[in-house]
Amino acid sequence: MKKITILGATGSIGQQTVDVCLHHQDEFEVVAVSAGKNIKLLEETIKQIKPKVVCVIDEKDALYLQEKYKEIKCVYGPEGLDYIATIDEVDIVLNAIVGFAGLLPTIHAIEAKKDIALANKETLVVAGYIITKLVKENGVKLLPVDSEHSAIFQSLQGNKGNKIKRILLTASGGSFRNKTREELVGVSVEDALKHPNWSMGAKITIDSATLFNKGLEVIEAKWLFDVDYDQIEVLIHPESILHSAVEYEDTSVIGQMGTPDMRLAIQYALTYPKREVLVNGESLDLTKIGSLTFIKPDFNRFHALELAYKAGKIGGSLPCVLNGANEMANLLFREGKIEFLQIEELVEKAMNAHQVIQDPNVSQLLEIDCWARDFVLKEINK
Amino acid sequence: MKKITILGATGSIGQQTVDVCLHHQDEFEVVAVSAGKNIKLLEETIKQIKPKVVCVIDEKDALYLQEKYKEIKCVYGPEGLDYIATIDEVDIVLNAIVGFAGLLPTIHAIEAKKDIALANKETLVVAGYIITKLVKENGVKLLPVDSEHSAIFQSLQGNKGNKIKRILLTASGGSFRNKTREELVGVSVEDALKHPNWSMGAKITIDSATLFNKGLEVIEAKWLFDVDYDQIEVLIHPESILHSAVEYEDTSVIGQMGTPDMRLAIQYALTYPKREVLVNGESLDLTKIGSLTFIKPDFNRFHALELAYKAGKIGGSLPCVLNGANEMANLLFREGKIEFLQIEELVEKAMNAHQVIQDPNVSQLLEIDCWARDFVLKEINK
Repeated sequence: MKKITILGATGSIGQQTVDVCLHHQDEFEVVAVSAGKNIKLLEETIKQIKPKVVCVIDEKDALYLQEKYKEIKCVYGPEGLDYIATIDEVDIVLNAIVGFAGLLPTIHAIEAKKDIALANKETLVVAGYIITKLVKENGVKLLPVDSEHSAIFQSLQGNKGNKIKRILLTASGGSFRNKTREELVGVSVEDALKHPNWSMGAKITIDSATLFNKGLEVIEAKWLFDVDYDQIEVLIHPESILHSAVEYEDTSVIGQMGTPDMRLAIQYALTYPKREVLVNGESLDLTKIGSLTFIKPDFNRFHALELAYKAGKIGGSLPCVLNGANEMANLLFREGKIEFLQIEELVEKAMNAHQVIQDPNVSQLLEIDCWARDFVLKEINK
Repeated sequence: MKKITILGATGSIGQQTVDVCLHHQDEFEVVAVSAGKNIKLLEETIKQIKPKVVCVIDEKDALYLQEKYKEIKCVYGPEGLDYIATIDEVDIVLNAIVGFAGLLPTIHAIEAKKDIALANKETLVVAGYIITKLVKENGVKLLPVDSEHSAIFQSLQGNKGNKIKRILLTASGGSFRNKTREELVGVSVEDALKHPNWSMGAKITIDSATLFNKGLEVIEAKWLFDVDYDQIEVLIHPESILHSAVEYEDTSVIGQMGTPDMRLAIQYALTYPKREVLVNGESLDLTKIGSLTFIKPDFNRFHALELAYKAGKIGGSLPCVLNGANEMANLLFREGKIEFLQIEELVEKAMNAHQVIQDPNVSQLLEIDCWARDFVLKEINK
């Protein structure tokens, strides 16, 4: 029986993780879950999986839950998160928290020798050099949950010792992939949230539309698979069927395909290296899809991608600025406070205004993250 | 240093194997080669790789070569083939003989505990149950050299213990893939030999046009990967980029892609599980290809495929009949003695005229193979 903590259980990935665990109750026990402010969904989740511990953001929610569910230990806030990320009996922590907030629980879970199933790409974007070092030192597994990185990870199996020549990281192109830059002026939040292939949370759906998501994934891939940025090639692949691929030195390209279903990547991270039946999973019918298309991304059109490569290559604290500024700009766009194209403008401004620090430590990263968010806020209030 | 015997060294696969070995002389030593009647090319090959032993079909060719190359041992005929397939110092026998003739050397090589790199699919088609048993008993490796089966084999790496749900076996559709059945009437040998993607020998190129090649590959896949026929799905994929794929129980599809270059499959069989630089290999550029298309094969249009599934499912001696009749019909078409569509007609007639034997032994298979060839010859001389 594998014992699991799910961080971010009421989000899209979190709920799909719950689904996977419910279908494999003989193998997985969800010991603890965290949620933000969606207490209604948390309560439904509690009823389904009966965790021993729950963590919420606010003390009042914790008190309410403790009163109602006496058999469950209810904790809250950052200390609560740390607590459930490090519970003794837990084997693996699935981190599906959105954004920078996922960093500290990941670090503490690794230090407590937990394997990590990582859906929180921001953790690696801002602190890849810290995380990969900690993973080695503590001898734990770092298993990707992003569908692209899971695809790469799956494509690497059975190739121990074989050098990676190139990673082909596919991108749907998001909700606006067919729009020119001119046509992006004035697009609505509602339209940006209409992802053509994947059902995901709001932040990541906007990140898909800007392609910041792909940019963050480039940086994530760099750390997960220990490659240079020049070895990571982004391909626009509108059908989202080839989830990503690896080219080896012999020119062989191994790729992972499937119908877009995040549960596959989640389940593989939990069952690895075994595979199991994906309950209600849909088999891929390539003849029904007919054709898979691949387009070279235009860095002028998808400027966010260019910014991410730049941040990654310069490294140090710059990816943290890219990420923090993007988180704030993404939020401001969803709140209707800025235009779509302003997201990348603001991120670029923040990057340009930042003096890069090499090898920042965690507290420096926390500061830099705050600075980047503030910078964006101040920019729009100028 | 891996020591190799190449059976069929002057054919297309044989020459590409020579190319691979020449580029990795620090790792591979070609100890022995066999050829048919192309003595000129054999002599060039001798100069390039300096084998210790060569085998030809005819005694007079062996005598000529022995006189000219005194440092080389020259043998001939079936005994000669057996000799070079079982030389003590040889580690691996790459069998690129075309057709049924490849069966006995494969068997003898396995019995002599040699690993087998198998390009001769007919071996498994006619005697899969014998070969797979022998491979187990002798504890040797059976490594596929067909690009499709190499792709499947590559897609299986790192999935030990994970059940195969389905094999997606891709087919270019051959030279006539865009022709209707009506349009196939009266097509020329010359046109049939124009394969759109792969540079291969004449027999296999005609087999690609009829789709008997894919049919043989279905049977080959059944034995190599221990699956049921219902788990093997053929997809027409005109671009020949996805060389084949495997679906697992979790709906994940792992596939191998690449520019069409047989040397990749050859080299992987020789270097397995390692990969090495494929000298002059071309990296796959999916954006240049633009799109990969997949079409369900129509069994009426591609009747040969239906016949192969039928032969495989009924089993016993029937695949041997399919193969023998096809070899003869394929030859007769190339010699201009029959029409293209007669190939499958003749194979079907032979299959219908045959009384299936379960578990035939090798000498029964030899007889049945002869019978099938004779049957086809007699049919056209009626």
